[in-house]
Amino acid sequence: MTTNPAPRSGRLGARQIYEALRDQITARVYGTDGLLPSSRALADEMGVARSTVTVAYEQLAAEGFIETRHGARPRVARAVVERARGRVAPRPPTRIAPLSKFGERLRQDAPVWTEPPRGLVANFRYGELSPSDFPVLAWKKAVVAAIARRPERLAYDDPCGSLRLRTALQGYLWRSRSVRCDVDQIVIVNGSQQGLDICARLLLDAGDRFVMENPGYLMAHHTFAATGAIAVPIPVDADGLETERLDGVTARLAYVTPSHQYPLGGVMPVGRRQQLLAWARKTDAHVIEDDYDSEYRYDAKPIPPLQALEGSDNVIYLGTISKTLSPTLRIGYLVVPARLRPLFRAAKQIMDRHTPLVEQDALAAMLESGAYDSHVRRARRRNAERRQALIDALRRRFGDRVRIEGAAAGLHVVAWFDGLPQTREEALIRAALAKGVGIYPVSALFDAGARGRRRPQRAIGLVMGYAALEPAQIERGCRLLAQAVDEIAAG
Amino acid sequence: MTTNPAPRSGRLGARQIYEALRDQITARVYGTDGLLPSSRALADEMGVARSTVTVAYEQLAAEGFIETRHGARPRVARAVVERARGRVAPRPPTRIAPLSKFGERLRQDAPVWTEPPRGLVANFRYGELSPSDFPVLAWKKAVVAAIARRPERLAYDDPCGSLRLRTALQGYLWRSRSVRCDVDQIVIVNGSQQGLDICARLLLDAGDRFVMENPGYLMAHHTFAATGAIAVPIPVDADGLETERLDGVTARLAYVTPSHQYPLGGVMPVGRRQQLLAWARKTDAHVIEDDYDSEYRYDAKPIPPLQALEGSDNVIYLGTISKTLSPTLRIGYLVVPARLRPLFRAAKQIMDRHTPLVEQDALAAMLESGAYDSHVRRARRRNAERRQALIDALRRRFGDRVRIEGAAAGLHVVAWFDGLPQTREEALIRAALAKGVGIYPVSALFDAGARGRRRPQRAIGLVMGYAALEPAQIERGCRLLAQAVDEIAAG
Repeated sequence: MTTNPAPRSGRLGARQIYEALRDQITARVYGTDGLLPSSRALADEMGVARSTVTVAYEQLAAEGFIETRHGARPRVARAVVERARGRVAPRPPTRIAPLSKFGERLRQDAPVWTEPPRGLVANFRYGELSPSDFPVLAWKKAVVAAIARRPERLAYDDPCGSLRLRTALQGYLWRSRSVRCDVDQIVIVNGSQQGLDICARLLLDAGDRFVMENPGYLMAHHTFAATGAIAVPIPVDADGLETERLDGVTARLAYVTPSHQYPLGGVMPVGRRQQLLAWARKTDAHVIEDDYDSEYRYDAKPIPPLQALEGSDNVIYLGTISKTLSPTLRIGYLVVPARLRPLFRAAKQIMDRHTPLVEQDALAAMLESGAYDSHVRRARRRNAERRQALIDALRRRFGDRVRIEGAAAGLHVVAWFDGLPQTREEALIRAALAKGVGIYPVSALFDAGARGRRRPQRAIGLVMGYAALEPAQIERGCRLLAQAVDEIAAG
Repeated sequence: MTTNPAPRSGRLGARQIYEALRDQITARVYGTDGLLPSSRALADEMGVARSTVTVAYEQLAAEGFIETRHGARPRVARAVVERARGRVAPRPPTRIAPLSKFGERLRQDAPVWTEPPRGLVANFRYGELSPSDFPVLAWKKAVVAAIARRPERLAYDDPCGSLRLRTALQGYLWRSRSVRCDVDQIVIVNGSQQGLDICARLLLDAGDRFVMENPGYLMAHHTFAATGAIAVPIPVDADGLETERLDGVTARLAYVTPSHQYPLGGVMPVGRRQQLLAWARKTDAHVIEDDYDSEYRYDAKPIPPLQALEGSDNVIYLGTISKTLSPTLRIGYLVVPARLRPLFRAAKQIMDRHTPLVEQDALAAMLESGAYDSHVRRARRRNAERRQALIDALRRRFGDRVRIEGAAAGLHVVAWFDGLPQTREEALIRAALAKGVGIYPVSALFDAGARGRRRPQRAIGLVMGYAALEPAQIERGCRLLAQAVDEIAAG
């Protein structure tokens, strides 16, 4: 018997012997009788203690590779021998067992994730936050307390989320968003993405239609389209979704961001809200209201959501802490109509049992103590400064050449460069990146089909997120962006 | 104007005024002209400062309820008035907008979650752990370090999981389970449940067939069946799945627990493993290998999984920390064939972006330092004691009347009471519960269809989990269980 690689000590251990024998058995080096050496003979041959061989043999027997009988030599198990005899050449590994239709759709149109670029002077990518805003001490304290808490048993919890967190959120939603709901209407999810996915699965089948804002949130589009349903893109203006265009549209759901349309930033007035709700009631559609950045409103108090209006029986409200604490924590929440609650519970149980308990507990503690509310106020002040820095810098660097949209709320603005034709967009992105500035065009968020047909924009528009940047970075970034604009305008 | 409820201070704030006005506007108390009082008049009427009313009016205007013009009285917004005019009685809320087929299947056959009973003398429910085993200090230290770590930005991470955790797991899987894989084959999921769900979605369509062990793991059955696929139950014996019965079976996937069949506890010998892999290759099926409790093996070294055998191209390996650390943390991992990796990544991104980062980081740190391995060794010792306590207690209390299966590994045994007919099962569960003992019959884990047809069991069998109990509780629980058995045998 040969072994390879040799053990470091120079002497073989039971594991090496076991592995070598296993490899030899599967390579069929033992003859038709399948007999292996006795443990004594093998121990002599290998220069190891007989007990070492015995351990290896016991392991092989436990796994069914060999059969042992007291006093007899071990023998390769009959099933292994027979298998080897009937053996055919394995199929080439390139052959792929079939996928589901969902899998095939994802294969053809997967969402993109790329490692975020590091070390830029200023990256205006939306959706990311500054670590300097994260309340490290308060979160640490809350998490440590949660870990130290000793339940009677470590057991699966309610799929809808811990009662403690749902109770704390119920109060928060009422005082901050005028949402009145029962604790049992709240479902804790792993960030708003899981909220979208659970809605997609419960409400959409292949061939169904869903209404999307155009331009709109790409991951929502991906999530709904992955079910095989078909997008109905509806344009948005400065007041959000143009709800009058819903007349005659049938769809199973509409996805909307009424508090601050993503990406154009419009706030939907109550007339359109009522029109949307009336459409949903009439057509038996659900409305998913993504209230993703409602904590950030700079000119007036936050607007109460659709969910708080009369006639909102078909509304599913979606909130997240990704914009207040961190997108890496993966906590969001749904407020669902009471009649749908058993279904959301069952779906969440199938999807992953429940959201991790320590984070739920920590967030509940921060909501109970008021630490969350005061953190939100602090984050709002800091983001108001960043927003002002961005608006000032854009004005200073571009003057009338820039038109700013959607700045009343949220964590991003849209900057339109009306003098720059959209054909120069790629060149601008490259020129900016060469100077260490990450910019992201709004054109990517238009529906591909509608974009081709209607050409809704001819100028370059940028979605400029500012929540991960300090004011000085924002200023430097805009200065460099202005240089890039000059370059491509001259080029 | 009347307000209700009155504010605590006795004077109205802007919020109360805003809410009262909003309610009145939606209740259409303003006439056809839609004119509201001037801010001065309303302030006089309410006995508040004019600025308080102005704030309320500004908010109503921001939300589109009213239109304001300098110097004129505010007016209900035209859209709101028109909406009110064209108003029809809302539909009764009992009407339910249609669900997806997935939603309808869940409505008809939802998995069950019930609040675990508290305060029992001994609850033998499987799948729960003792908080006294949890390494509070080590986990706290790892989590605190993870929270304190400051990335450049708080941003979404790789959907497949953090590179650090995947690297640490790669080493762990090799040293503990002989699994050799690339870090890019590892996908971090929220517990094994999400691993099952992601496989179900990528591999199964309605009408497809999936092979289940019978009896087997109910949540896997639920998860696959929720896609509309149809279970093909295959019996198990003391060597796990009876793979010779796969001849002629076509299915898209097979779900197996070869290291320790759940629930009967058989360890699948290598001959059957090869037979299973050959079947999968021949029929283009995937094999999901759930290695859920592989850390617990008391008589021999752990058996290398299917994934480590030759010809395992179609195997998806599934592991979890729910049995070593805690089911409440929600971390598991898949090892997928390299060709499927882009799909699993896309699916995970759609499902919830990624698993929470702090836990991933903490687990990686524990794996790197060796703290996880030494914790597993300690947990194995403690569970070996519990297992011995259970076997001893069952022997002492029942002698030959009990037959114990599946005790070589895992965190549960199956105790068969061959003298007790299955018709007395309900009575025994009730009698035990009355004494403070929670017991769970194996009969619930048989496939409903196959159970009716084949009557594979006539005696009462109990799945007895011991990992959440201390030896003294186990002893007391068995004593009380013996009393319950005596009662129903006499009754």
